[in-house]
Amino acid sequence: MPDTAPPQDLLPTLKAILGPRGLLTEAADTDPYCEDWRRLYRGRTPAVARPATAREASDVIRLCAARGVGVVPQGGNTSMVGGAVPAEDGSQIVLSLARMRAVRDLDPADMTMTIEAGATLKAAQDAAAEAGCLLPLSISSEGTATVGGVLSTNAGGNNTVRHGNARDLVLGLEVVLPDGQVWNGLRRLRKDNTGYCLRQLFVGAEGTLGVITAAVLKLAPRPREIEIAFCALPSPEAALALFARLRQHDPAAVQAFEYMSGAGMELVLKHIPGTVLPLSAPAGHYALIELATPRPDAGLRAGLEAVLEAALADGTVLDAAIAESDAQRAAIWRLREEHAEAQKREGASVKNDVSVPVSRVPELLRRASEACEALMPGIRVVAFGHMGDGNIHFNLEQPEAMDPAAFLARDHEIMDRVNEVVRELDGSFSAEHGVGRLKPYMMPGWRGGAELDTMQRIKRALDPKGVMNPGKVLP
Amino acid sequence: MPDTAPPQDLLPTLKAILGPRGLLTEAADTDPYCEDWRRLYRGRTPAVARPATAREASDVIRLCAARGVGVVPQGGNTSMVGGAVPAEDGSQIVLSLARMRAVRDLDPADMTMTIEAGATLKAAQDAAAEAGCLLPLSISSEGTATVGGVLSTNAGGNNTVRHGNARDLVLGLEVVLPDGQVWNGLRRLRKDNTGYCLRQLFVGAEGTLGVITAAVLKLAPRPREIEIAFCALPSPEAALALFARLRQHDPAAVQAFEYMSGAGMELVLKHIPGTVLPLSAPAGHYALIELATPRPDAGLRAGLEAVLEAALADGTVLDAAIAESDAQRAAIWRLREEHAEAQKREGASVKNDVSVPVSRVPELLRRASEACEALMPGIRVVAFGHMGDGNIHFNLEQPEAMDPAAFLARDHEIMDRVNEVVRELDGSFSAEHGVGRLKPYMMPGWRGGAELDTMQRIKRALDPKGVMNPGKVLP
Repeated sequence: MPDTAPPQDLLPTLKAILGPRGLLTEAADTDPYCEDWRRLYRGRTPAVARPATAREASDVIRLCAARGVGVVPQGGNTSMVGGAVPAEDGSQIVLSLARMRAVRDLDPADMTMTIEAGATLKAAQDAAAEAGCLLPLSISSEGTATVGGVLSTNAGGNNTVRHGNARDLVLGLEVVLPDGQVWNGLRRLRKDNTGYCLRQLFVGAEGTLGVITAAVLKLAPRPREIEIAFCALPSPEAALALFARLRQHDPAAVQAFEYMSGAGMELVLKHIPGTVLPLSAPAGHYALIELATPRPDAGLRAGLEAVLEAALADGTVLDAAIAESDAQRAAIWRLREEHAEAQKREGASVKNDVSVPVSRVPELLRRASEACEALMPGIRVVAFGHMGDGNIHFNLEQPEAMDPAAFLARDHEIMDRVNEVVRELDGSFSAEHGVGRLKPYMMPGWRGGAELDTMQRIKRALDPKGVMNPGKVLP
Repeated sequence: MPDTAPPQDLLPTLKAILGPRGLLTEAADTDPYCEDWRRLYRGRTPAVARPATAREASDVIRLCAARGVGVVPQGGNTSMVGGAVPAEDGSQIVLSLARMRAVRDLDPADMTMTIEAGATLKAAQDAAAEAGCLLPLSISSEGTATVGGVLSTNAGGNNTVRHGNARDLVLGLEVVLPDGQVWNGLRRLRKDNTGYCLRQLFVGAEGTLGVITAAVLKLAPRPREIEIAFCALPSPEAALALFARLRQHDPAAVQAFEYMSGAGMELVLKHIPGTVLPLSAPAGHYALIELATPRPDAGLRAGLEAVLEAALADGTVLDAAIAESDAQRAAIWRLREEHAEAQKREGASVKNDVSVPVSRVPELLRRASEACEALMPGIRVVAFGHMGDGNIHFNLEQPEAMDPAAFLARDHEIMDRVNEVVRELDGSFSAEHGVGRLKPYMMPGWRGGAELDTMQRIKRALDPKGVMNPGKVLP
């Protein structure tokens, strides 16, 4: 055993507390917990602890803290930045929330749900829907990602433009702190000004300040009408103008406004079987519009048609199709959601999850495209994402004839070019994916000075031994 | 000079930095800064510093911190809990933001406003309105309360049911930290996951972790239709049912849902000249409904009439009036807003700013009323407030024949009875007014253990010398 292995008494003690189902120690069992979804990191762990209650999670953390052993919380392990994998040296225990997935309470009168961290986001959505409500958070990995994970990373997704990020849906939390104390902050209150807002500190902290074991989430009324349209546009500026018109017309109804570049759409149509462009001709830019309302007879369709007709008349929109059935709605969303898969099939790509103020998205698209094309002739800009909230997945596909490895060898150079533009536009280098293990090195440059200093003070104050998710978020 | 006075060199140094307009030292000038709005506290200060920039504010705090002198940030000084007054011993400097009130940026495309902390909430609302937008935060003291104050106390008010609390409107902050560092976090991003969410730590911290000097606020589209109704109801349960029906019908439209008791309405009609009940007969319970929509032709009036007609038909509502003019709208709001003044004119009263889950408001009203009436026969329950967000101002008016001083001598006994019920209903002892200097003693009982321990760790980490707003929030 390497000398980084945890003290010999730890695993038997954990086993005694957690029972046979509660501790995995065989490599075959622990392996899936050691690699991230993007396969950027491959760690090792002597054990995966699977507590069934907050009390058990508290015992695990207290025991590890007493011995100085790092604890890596893990939900669905869908991090895009290696936020949930243990280190390579085998020194850290993985704490899986998989056995904590009960819906503890769901109250349609309060429009709140109290749910454990290990439930998948999809399970939480389904429970809300059964009660006639909507949990308004939706991300591609929702079938695997967990409530604890999406809160710890402040997930965003498609509906941020209307309902905000995960952070905006949290009323209360239950958290096991780095010293093993359990904070029961599962309050269901819409107003409560009694001291510091701790819940928002744990949301987005990526498990470095404690482990979220349960949460009270706000629900929204279930939509009764949904309309989806797909538009071809002459420019990014036209896309922004269309978004502004929709919001002007009925701001509460705009549930998603997604941008896609012509280059990305070409790849989707080329590689994804069954995809068809629902328009008469390809264009340089596209937008997906989703409107929804919980109000019956809201005239959603008529409103959408009115906005699109005016936009077609003055050239803001080149062509548009409104989905007439659930099948058509799904087909349109598929054009957007298959962007990542299509890129993968085409060749090597470099991903940037960036954000800028909404008004500056067109400038981002133009300037970052020019910067990348100047750096590497033939590079293909596959920019797409949540224009309505300023978050663009500014991905770059290798030039057609280039060797993938040679392309990927220049990944940091490409990312730096994109980020230079993002920075000049007052944007962020990580809009919704977080920092994890991939990007702590960027923190001093982007969040240095008073901001990083304050974060580090908080980390030391709450986790002086550095037990919680070591090596993540902070450099 | 008492030995608690600040070091002799401090005031001349401050004067040199801030200039003649920037430092008040005469008692006649500093007096208004030393007493709170409710006149619960009367402090003393050797000087009121009035910086014109974040840099000057930073100098003030750095100088005070170096000498161990406490700094009390003050906006409009409208705290209900003595949150902005200096101590009686004359040891603390007041830091007024009154000279920092510029609108630094307002972008209708981004729907954001960057504004300095000393601007009044009303000035911020007006600037947003001029740009065709709405700053959706409204409280009674908005003409005096400042942006920095409403953020530092996470103000709530009438529109929380629709737009959330002050916390929900903040995208970015500029903060002078307890060591004088300036954190420029004035980002205008809807998505940004790059480390801990510091802004939400400063919002609601009541100036104990630093001074907010500017903020980026989210704006909403300006409403184009508003409808206001006033209803008589048979019970608190009927009020909750009416709220649920309105939300079911058109959740995005419910901008305010205010409850008032029959006893409170009697006092308003008795003491406030020009007030008239817009219904045929008095009732035991009332609700004020405000619907609003930024969408033209939304059928708001027809929807409201449909809900009210059905509620009248089945007895949920006893009588209802819909305002037909701005004058009528103002008159209805006045019935609600004059509750505090009417209570004052009637005699002595005890105030409780409490919250419970929305579904439990009727139970709160019944049980807390019974508890107070059992404690003191003849006591009058003047409960009113924001039923739609669970926040009730559960005020008690003295029995008619009782001596006011004798009544007030039992204030803690009365508050304790109310709070016992609040606690059993998983509520909070301070919904929107905060903790300030009045309620830190309640923190151990209500927020003790892991929660208070974590707050204290954060306070020590960010403000190890205890410079910022000493004696507030934490016990």
